[in-house]
Amino acid sequence: MSATNLYAVIMAGGSGTRFWPASRRTRPKQFLPIAGDLPMIVETHRRLEGLVPDERILVVAGEAHVPLVRSALPTLPVENLLAEPVGRNTAPCVALAAFEIQRRAPDSVQAILPADHVIRPAEAFRASLRAAAVEAWENEHLLTFGIEPTFPATGYGYIEAGAIVREVHGIPVRAVARFVEKPDEDRARAFIASGKFFWNGGIFVWRTSTILDELAAHLPALHHALASADPRRLGAVYPRLRGEAIDTGVMEKSARVRMLPIPYEWSDVGSWTALPDVHGRDAAGNCVAGDTELVVEDARDCIVYGEDGRLTALLGVSDLIVVHTQDATLVCPRSRAQDVRRIVAALEARESDRL
Amino acid sequence: MSATNLYAVIMAGGSGTRFWPASRRTRPKQFLPIAGDLPMIVETHRRLEGLVPDERILVVAGEAHVPLVRSALPTLPVENLLAEPVGRNTAPCVALAAFEIQRRAPDSVQAILPADHVIRPAEAFRASLRAAAVEAWENEHLLTFGIEPTFPATGYGYIEAGAIVREVHGIPVRAVARFVEKPDEDRARAFIASGKFFWNGGIFVWRTSTILDELAAHLPALHHALASADPRRLGAVYPRLRGEAIDTGVMEKSARVRMLPIPYEWSDVGSWTALPDVHGRDAAGNCVAGDTELVVEDARDCIVYGEDGRLTALLGVSDLIVVHTQDATLVCPRSRAQDVRRIVAALEARESDRL
Repeated sequence: MSATNLYAVIMAGGSGTRFWPASRRTRPKQFLPIAGDLPMIVETHRRLEGLVPDERILVVAGEAHVPLVRSALPTLPVENLLAEPVGRNTAPCVALAAFEIQRRAPDSVQAILPADHVIRPAEAFRASLRAAAVEAWENEHLLTFGIEPTFPATGYGYIEAGAIVREVHGIPVRAVARFVEKPDEDRARAFIASGKFFWNGGIFVWRTSTILDELAAHLPALHHALASADPRRLGAVYPRLRGEAIDTGVMEKSARVRMLPIPYEWSDVGSWTALPDVHGRDAAGNCVAGDTELVVEDARDCIVYGEDGRLTALLGVSDLIVVHTQDATLVCPRSRAQDVRRIVAALEARESDRL
Repeated sequence: MSATNLYAVIMAGGSGTRFWPASRRTRPKQFLPIAGDLPMIVETHRRLEGLVPDERILVVAGEAHVPLVRSALPTLPVENLLAEPVGRNTAPCVALAAFEIQRRAPDSVQAILPADHVIRPAEAFRASLRAAAVEAWENEHLLTFGIEPTFPATGYGYIEAGAIVREVHGIPVRAVARFVEKPDEDRARAFIASGKFFWNGGIFVWRTSTILDELAAHLPALHHALASADPRRLGAVYPRLRGEAIDTGVMEKSARVRMLPIPYEWSDVGSWTALPDVHGRDAAGNCVAGDTELVVEDARDCIVYGEDGRLTALLGVSDLIVVHTQDATLVCPRSRAQDVRRIVAALEARESDRL
C-alpha cells in the first residue's frame, strides 16, 4: 500500500437522542464536546493528523447537519462532504462513500470511522490504521477493529476471534470465527471469561474494490441503486434504500473478514453513563464534565454535565445523571440513561421547541 | 379598641438558608415569590389591606435588606422601616418595634407578623386579627395564634390549649396550659391525638403597653437596653443584645398568654418540602412552581422550582427536590431539605460568590 491512497470516511449521521438535552435535532452528539474540549467529530478528525490529509477525508452526514460539519471541520474540501437526504443506517453510508472514492481513486484503501467515538491514544490508533491498511491492501480483507471488553456489555455486538493469521508492524491480525449481536448479560460474562471475544467497534478498514465487491455480493440492491447515482442528487434514490447496518449486511456474511485487536482506550460514548470512563471521577465516584461547577454533600457516583456555567449542588443523592444546557435540565438515575429517548418522545408529543 | 390604633409589625429578619439557591445572603426567602406570584413579604403586606394602613405598618429587617423592603413595599413610609444592625432572634425585634410604636401611639395594639408565612384566606386572617386585637385591648392579654396541626411535625413549638375563656365576634379565645418546644415524633403524634395541641405559629397580638410590661418583667436587660436607644442608631446597642426568641423569652413565662385558634390554611414554608402544600401537586404527586416548564417520565412526588424559565426533565426519579436559579441548580431528596444549609456552608468554606 502506498501512503497516498489511504482514505478516511467519517460517519457523522447519528441523531443522538440519548444525549438530550445537550444533543438536539439540530446538533447531535458528534457535534458536542461531550468527551473533551472539542466536538467529537473534531477529535475524530484530529486523530487522523499526519496519517490522512484533508483531501482524502470524506464525511457523510445528514443534509441538515452539513453546515455543522463545515463549521466544525473548516479545512475539509467542500466536495468531501457527502449529504444523506435521510438516514438509512451504515450500509448505504459505506456504499455511498465507497463509490465516491472509487471515482476518485479506484486503487485505494479506506478507513471507516464513526464520528462520535473516543479512542486514545491517537498515535496507537494511527498505528492500528496503518497496519490494517497494509493488511486490507495486500490480502483484500475486510478489517474490523476489536475492542477488549471491560465489562459484560449487552448493548454491543461481539466478535469471536480466531487464530492470529499475521502480524503487521507487530500488530496481530486475527481470523474471525463469528459475530454475535447484543448477548444477554450471562452470555456476555461467558464471552469475557473465554478471552476470545471482542467488542465490534464499528471501525473498518478495506480496499475500495473489496468493499464494493462485497456489497455487490451481499447487498446487491443497495450496490445497484448507488452504482449509478449522482452523489449530489440522492433525493430520489436514498429514501427508497433499505436501512441496514454494514455489520449485519456485509461483515457477518463475508468470508474475508479479519479482526485487528485494539488494546487501548475506546468508548462509543453511548449514553451519559459513559462520561466517568472518559472524564474520570473523584474520590466519591462523582464525575463532572463540561462547563459547570460542582458542590456536593453526601453525594456519590453521580454524573454532571453542564453547558451554561451554572453551579450544580448535589445533596444526599447517588447514581444520578444531571445535565444542564442553556434552556433545559435533565435529572435521571444512571440506570435510566438509555431511556432519555422517552423524554425526547414526550417533548415530540407536546411539539416542544426544546428538541 | 379603636380601629385607628391597631399597628402591624412585619418581622423580615430571616436569612432563609434552607431555600438556597433561590434565597441568597442578599435576597432571603421573604423577598422571593416562593409561595405565589409575589414575594412573600408583599403577600404579608397585602393580607393587611383594609385592616391596617401603611402609616401603621412597621417592618423590621436586617440593615442590608432595607433596600429590598423599600423596593418590595414602596408605599410604606420610610420611617416605618426599622433596621437591625445584626440579627438577634425575635425578642429584640419585638422590643424594638414596641418602643417605636409606644413613642408614636402609647394606647395601641400591635400584631406581630412573620414576613414569610402563607396564610389563606386573607379575609379569615383579618377577622382573627380583629378579634385578637379586641381581646388584647380589653383584657391586656398576649395573644398567640394556634394552628391546628395537620401532621406530627417535630420542627414546631406546640401549645397545649386550655378552656375557651371568651368568644370575640364568634372566634374563641382559649387559655394556654403550656408550651412545648419541638417534640419527638411519638410525642407529636400523641399531641395531635389528644386534640388539645396547636402549633405555635409565631403570630402575636398584644397591647403595646402589655408587651413592654412583660419584656420588663421577663427580659429586663433587653427592655433596659432598648428603652433608651435611638432606633436610628442601634449599632452600639444591638450587637450586645442576647439572641432570644420572644416565645421562650416571654410567652412561655407570662401568665397573660391566651391562644386564638386559626382553623384555616397556614404554612411557615420552612423548606422546599412545603411547596406541594402551598402550590398543589399533579396526579403523580409532582409539584412545580416558579418559572420553569416540567416534563416527566416515571417521576413522582418531586418538587421543582425554577426562576429562569428552563425546562426541567425528570426521568425515573421520585421524592427529589430540584431548584434552578439563573446560576445554580440544587438536587436533593425531599428527606434532606433541612440539610440544604450544608450546601450553603460548603459554599462558604470555598468562599463562593453564589451565597
